[in-house]
Amino acid sequence: MLYPGNIKKEFNKQINYANRGMDLEALVNEANKFYEINDIAIIYKKPTPVNITKVKYENNKVLTKGQLKSKSSLDYVGVYKGKYLDFDAKSTLSKTSFPLSNISNHQIKHIKNVLKHGGLTFLIIEINNEIYLFKGETLIEFINNNERKSIPYKEIKNNGEKIALKYNPTLDYLNIVNRLYFKGENNEK
Amino acid sequence: MLYPGNIKKEFNKQINYANRGMDLEALVNEANKFYEINDIAIIYKKPTPVNITKVKYENNKVLTKGQLKSKSSLDYVGVYKGKYLDFDAKSTLSKTSFPLSNISNHQIKHIKNVLKHGGLTFLIIEINNEIYLFKGETLIEFINNNERKSIPYKEIKNNGEKIALKYNPTLDYLNIVNRLYFKGENNEK
Repeated sequence: MLYPGNIKKEFNKQINYANRGMDLEALVNEANKFYEINDIAIIYKKPTPVNITKVKYENNKVLTKGQLKSKSSLDYVGVYKGKYLDFDAKSTLSKTSFPLSNISNHQIKHIKNVLKHGGLTFLIIEINNEIYLFKGETLIEFINNNERKSIPYKEIKNNGEKIALKYNPTLDYLNIVNRLYFKGENNEK
Repeated sequence: MLYPGNIKKEFNKQINYANRGMDLEALVNEANKFYEINDIAIIYKKPTPVNITKVKYENNKVLTKGQLKSKSSLDYVGVYKGKYLDFDAKSTLSKTSFPLSNISNHQIKHIKNVLKHGGLTFLIIEINNEIYLFKGETLIEFINNNERKSIPYKEIKNNGEKIALKYNPTLDYLNIVNRLYFKGENNEK
């Protein structure tokens, strides 16, 4: 079965400020909007891949029927300082580890490919009410050197970069990207 | 109405070797496959954006109903030598000019944005049985300096880069990209 969790999420998408704050996806979207408006980067969510099998015109709309395809890449793609960016945002309710079942084999392959061609790729992981940027390189290294089916929280804490929430945008992950990948360059940001 | 032409094309997609050879999209897809297999670049077609309104599980498939969204970016995205690539492939049957109605205002805005952030963006234009790579910069310049609703063939011939068909891949557009954007760098390709 194809990631029903994601789909459910798509339809229950509500920004809940009351309990745990905005959900992770809403935070990433907010940041991306901020980056676009302020000419910092162009980053967008890829459309959900649907195999369209039927179309129908009705009231100037194009209605579609189709079938969900499995995801073979990550959710977000974009350009920042000329570089190709490709990443995903994942939350886990577990407090002790991030289950690798959150990432498909196709996605792992995609991450390796992007790294091979010099793109920037990472996960934004929400765990224990904290948010981390976890580099693709670190993820692949972990998978290569471990038999484990999940990444322990401690590992994420030690090898990821915590993203502190702030004002405008709330989740300024490009600040971390800048530090991790563009260190030593002339940064005006 | 939303680009019904594109959609029709999606469903009539047949590779016709008999008449005019493979269609342009098939050629781009063939090249992208070649680039991936040979570790040259990762470039893929973005999914058609659908606003999913209903999902249903049936025989282990996820069936969707939805509505087509208008395209605000270009069809292809990818990473080549670390750089962000974003482009579209367009054919015209006109022999004298390429109608700008082929490109939406949102797409023009997207091209400008990608250029601003240092991404590589262009059109692959099929006209008069020839195929050209037409840089985003050249396109924007043309639009800024002209009232015309189409780009004359001569303009494309003079300011675009003709892509000669060859063997494996047939449409080696990255060869042109390499020459146009990476000139002077150490190119092993």
